Amino acid sequence: MSSQPGRLDEQRLARAALTYLAEPGDPALGALLAICEPAEVLAAIKADLLPATGPGCGDTPASRTALQRALGRWRLRLPELPGESGVAIARGEDIRLVCPGDPEWPGRLDDLGRARPYALWLRGRSDLRQSSLRSVSMVGSRAATAYGTHVAGEIAADLGERGWTIVSGGAYGIDAAAHRGALVTHATTIAVLACGVDYPYPAGHEGLFADIAAGGLVVSEWPPGRRPARLRFLVRNRVIASLTGGTVVVEAGERSGALNTARHAADLCRALMAVPGPVTSAQSAGCHRLIRDWDATLVTRAADVIEMLSPIGAADTLAAIPAKTPPSDPSPSRDDLDEDSARVLDAFPARGHAWPATIAVDAGVDLDTVLRCLGPLAAYGFIERSDTGWRLRRLGPPGR
Amino acid sequence: MSSQPGRLDEQRLARAALTYLAEPGDPALGALLAICEPAEVLAAIKADLLPATGPGCGDTPASRTALQRALGRWRLRLPELPGESGVAIARGEDIRLVCPGDPEWPGRLDDLGRARPYALWLRGRSDLRQSSLRSVSMVGSRAATAYGTHVAGEIAADLGERGWTIVSGGAYGIDAAAHRGALVTHATTIAVLACGVDYPYPAGHEGLFADIAAGGLVVSEWPPGRRPARLRFLVRNRVIASLTGGTVVVEAGERSGALNTARHAADLCRALMAVPGPVTSAQSAGCHRLIRDWDATLVTRAADVIEMLSPIGAADTLAAIPAKTPPSDPSPSRDDLDEDSARVLDAFPARGHAWPATIAVDAGVDLDTVLRCLGPLAAYGFIERSDTGWRLRRLGPPGR
Repeated sequence: MSSQPGRLDEQRLARAALTYLAEPGDPALGALLAICEPAEVLAAIKADLLPATGPGCGDTPASRTALQRALGRWRLRLPELPGESGVAIARGEDIRLVCPGDPEWPGRLDDLGRARPYALWLRGRSDLRQSSLRSVSMVGSRAATAYGTHVAGEIAADLGERGWTIVSGGAYGIDAAAHRGALVTHATTIAVLACGVDYPYPAGHEGLFADIAAGGLVVSEWPPGRRPARLRFLVRNRVIASLTGGTVVVEAGERSGALNTARHAADLCRALMAVPGPVTSAQSAGCHRLIRDWDATLVTRAADVIEMLSPIGAADTLAAIPAKTPPSDPSPSRDDLDEDSARVLDAFPARGHAWPATIAVDAGVDLDTVLRCLGPLAAYGFIERSDTGWRLRRLGPPGR
Repeated sequence: MSSQPGRLDEQRLARAALTYLAEPGDPALGALLAICEPAEVLAAIKADLLPATGPGCGDTPASRTALQRALGRWRLRLPELPGESGVAIARGEDIRLVCPGDPEWPGRLDDLGRARPYALWLRGRSDLRQSSLRSVSMVGSRAATAYGTHVAGEIAADLGERGWTIVSGGAYGIDAAAHRGALVTHATTIAVLACGVDYPYPAGHEGLFADIAAGGLVVSEWPPGRRPARLRFLVRNRVIASLTGGTVVVEAGERSGALNTARHAADLCRALMAVPGPVTSAQSAGCHRLIRDWDATLVTRAADVIEMLSPIGAADTLAAIPAKTPPSDPSPSRDDLDEDSARVLDAFPARGHAWPATIAVDAGVDLDTVLRCLGPLAAYGFIERSDTGWRLRRLGPPGR
């Protein structure tokens, strides 16, 4: 993996430290990181002396004053900064750091511009970039109705069945139903938290987060141990929206926080979708407003979501294809695969199922490599997950 | 009234006869009526000899053959044609005929072009044109759920409260709920049937139709006594769609007949709206498809419907106005009213309520004149209906 202690360098250490010192999305730090190296910024904070900046940042007296004030703000947290080894390895080997530029860094996050996360803390075995390539965010009310949790779970499970990763916020209600729907079908699911990835909030979800980490990822911009706070949920929402190709709002009251995620998705030109419900239910009022104002497209099931998130042209094909048939186009052929993926694919039995550990032995690669390759191979339609492991997908009849 | 027996002339008699002989929407009759007088067409049918037609109709051998075949078709029903007095007065004085060009003929129906009704049979005391000026069609499944009938009734009642006429098809399910919602608030409602206005179909709705006729209208293209037939419902739907400014689909399965009305509304450039429901309900699947494909706008309540049907510019104002406040613009002033309407308005008591009969006495006009004027006066925001009669509307504070 790219974040092994041995490969940590000065800039990665600095980014880790910055997640301790500054709140995510701080415009002052975003502006500095746009023109300075992270280590340079960290040194400036420690020295309480602004780096010599170029044009576009701190080049007017007013903005220099703002930056100086920001330095003071970040310096307040210097005592909380763990020693270098603490930053580097975080707390135990379960948690790792992913930085912009890493192979595992999802390029989609760069759409956030200066509000891009400084770095992300990860808990879990999936590859963040690979598993978010074909992913959808599902958000909604914490005070969800039985209808809402039922529908969120069903759609998430159906999407999981078809190889899609479900991204959500780990909260009670719709978030939990979406994560659990994905887990039921052994699909990858990603919880983006507003606190440290090891912080059990909400407390009742400690087991859920462990389940998510076992097959997917728990992700945070905040360093391990950091508590949640009201504003952090709003800041976190932009990551949920930007990590995927689109966001589905399942239930949301008129003032639900899920509508904040929805706005981020729309601002980022992501597909925005909403599930309707009874007009007599206040928990669907936010969804209905999004659809009525043509901000969101109405979706009722996984196939609708997939159609929205698929490339133009492929969409019509995909919508008509039953769950178990791979899209015929524009999937790459075997020749397009990288060496590891080709090796993993060749290790699949012609008939029946296999577990990743078996495949690793047969392919002569380690388990992490297998796990990293499974998502894209499923996304491209070569393989599929079933209750009893992974198996090759059979193509439909020619000309279909 | 414009359809008193004394005013019946040859062309009106011919149109009445044509409703007995041809099915509504017959393209051959539409083509003939576009270039010949109705009496001329009737004479041609009786003589079994095509009239000398001008360009655009029957001017090719093929189309003349088609017209000749149509003549034979229509002649089959000549024995069913009642005597002249029977056609003129129909069955008793409750039923009257309205023809294109009559003051009571709704100009909107002319949008149907050659598929325009030959004439309409009416039962009830409202003025068809006046009451359809500010009207909305509500259609949906006969096999409606409790949710659907509840919502249809609520929205219809709210629209009725605000002076809107509800048009529907008189069927079980959503249609009946819409009519009844309007009746509850003493609003005008119009049932457009696929059989004679005196034909009790469905049988269980005989009482409902009597209630509708008492305060609104039962309307049909088919002559009195004519039975319903499967295809007639589809033909009838274009009248429901064209009579109003927009159609609301409340519940519709994937193959519901209400979707046929919806397509007519869209084809006629009417506003098309749909009420969502649980995605788990098959009865909402048709509504969801309309919204998802952006054919229909999602609406959840009367205010949404009014916003869709109001002129651009007035819409924002209207949406923000509570039910009891009149739109400040673009209502005409008192000076814009015709003589009868001005006289009726002046007869309203400054405070309290009055019934139409009292107003007729005070205004010195007959009751029919009062009834004809109430709809437009309410539509323009001068008056409103309440449980205890009609009253002047009080304007909100200036600058509101």
